[in-house]
Amino acid sequence: MITKNQIKYIKDLSRKAIRWKERKFVVEGEKLVSELLQSEVAIDEIYALAGWKEAHPNLPCTEISEKDLSRISQLKTPNKVLAVVYMFEDELNDDRSNGLTLFLDRINDPGNLGTIIRMADWFGVNKIVCSENSVDVYNPKVIQSSMGSVYRIPVFYVNPEEYFLNYKKQFPKNPIVGAAMEGEPLAEAKLPKEGLLVMGSESHGINQEVQAHLTQTVTIPNLGQAESLNVAVATGIILWEWTR
Amino acid sequence: MITKNQIKYIKDLSRKAIRWKERKFVVEGEKLVSELLQSEVAIDEIYALAGWKEAHPNLPCTEISEKDLSRISQLKTPNKVLAVVYMFEDELNDDRSNGLTLFLDRINDPGNLGTIIRMADWFGVNKIVCSENSVDVYNPKVIQSSMGSVYRIPVFYVNPEEYFLNYKKQFPKNPIVGAAMEGEPLAEAKLPKEGLLVMGSESHGINQEVQAHLTQTVTIPNLGQAESLNVAVATGIILWEWTR
Repeated sequence: MITKNQIKYIKDLSRKAIRWKERKFVVEGEKLVSELLQSEVAIDEIYALAGWKEAHPNLPCTEISEKDLSRISQLKTPNKVLAVVYMFEDELNDDRSNGLTLFLDRINDPGNLGTIIRMADWFGVNKIVCSENSVDVYNPKVIQSSMGSVYRIPVFYVNPEEYFLNYKKQFPKNPIVGAAMEGEPLAEAKLPKEGLLVMGSESHGINQEVQAHLTQTVTIPNLGQAESLNVAVATGIILWEWTR
Repeated sequence: MITKNQIKYIKDLSRKAIRWKERKFVVEGEKLVSELLQSEVAIDEIYALAGWKEAHPNLPCTEISEKDLSRISQLKTPNKVLAVVYMFEDELNDDRSNGLTLFLDRINDPGNLGTIIRMADWFGVNKIVCSENSVDVYNPKVIQSSMGSVYRIPVFYVNPEEYFLNYKKQFPKNPIVGAAMEGEPLAEAKLPKEGLLVMGSESHGINQEVQAHLTQTVTIPNLGQAESLNVAVATGIILWEWTR
């Protein structure tokens, strides 16, 4: 049985401030929880319908009714199981510092961040670094749209100025490549194996302070009449070109 | 003043069956309506707040209150103006038949279709052809996420079998290229200027009957651990590679 306090606690975790205070977040649905169990992420509690609990007899798990599940769920169609999970504890200066890193400047849309995490995982990006004012990686929609890649790709929040100064000190030879409307045509750009790709928000592009640190800018030429490309699509195309 | 009947009529247009019976759909928000006015799409009615109406004195337009706008709006944050618009009347066998065409097999997510229309407009795709059971292009979320490109890129619904037979008769030399998990690596594929790119649904891939018509399959190699790429992102990468 789930208690009223537990229901309230889980609902409160839909708020960013509470998540960061508690250092916990929520993962929902059969597929995402199944990937969670295979990851090394620390789980606090699992709440599941009887069928799911029976199929996982070795797991500590609180059985709940469909009605209670729909109370605590953020999904339109609640799906069998919900887990309360501890935030990841990756260190920014870990051994994954080198390779291809993605820097996101003020990405606000949770679906875009989730999709970008998923493609970072596809293209072997080592980590994602976000400016402090970007959407929270523990937002339920980010978790959902990342489709499990969020367990594998570490996401950090930083002060951009400090981060870029430190990156340049650590990797003085790596390019810092920004996507911009007026850069070098992407097909002609020389992109070495290691470096930093910087993507700006859909509405504002890359912040001026961040622009000052770029060593190179690239553009996906417009062959038609659309005003812009979706930022997740543009990120995918540049990552493809960078690693092809 | 908007009448009760008009409110009901506009609300009903959120349903696909009603849209196709009436052959009308709804466009919302300042930016989309402004692009609409620059397009050649036929407008039935415009409903707008006083400020918008005053800024467009030459347009026939019904002034409505914020309260009424929020009643007829499908947006979370209703935005100044809403137009009832006649469906596009493009003919499938028009002069845009050649060039690069995109075929979508059972794409269900409106956000994905809208994003794909937007990038088709970016990459100069001549038209989009969807299998009959795909999401409706006049769905409000498709219109919204296409960001005006829906006025420029014609979208058709067809019986795939008939369409492919006819396409092959009309353009016997054009390749029909499908995106698949086990195809030729995309970077090595030869892609001539004209042809048909076939993308399948995220959950089911390309339907077997459609697969039988492919002359070529391509794959975006997986360098990491993600199970799949978002279909809009994959479409963007292949369109980029095709046109680069």
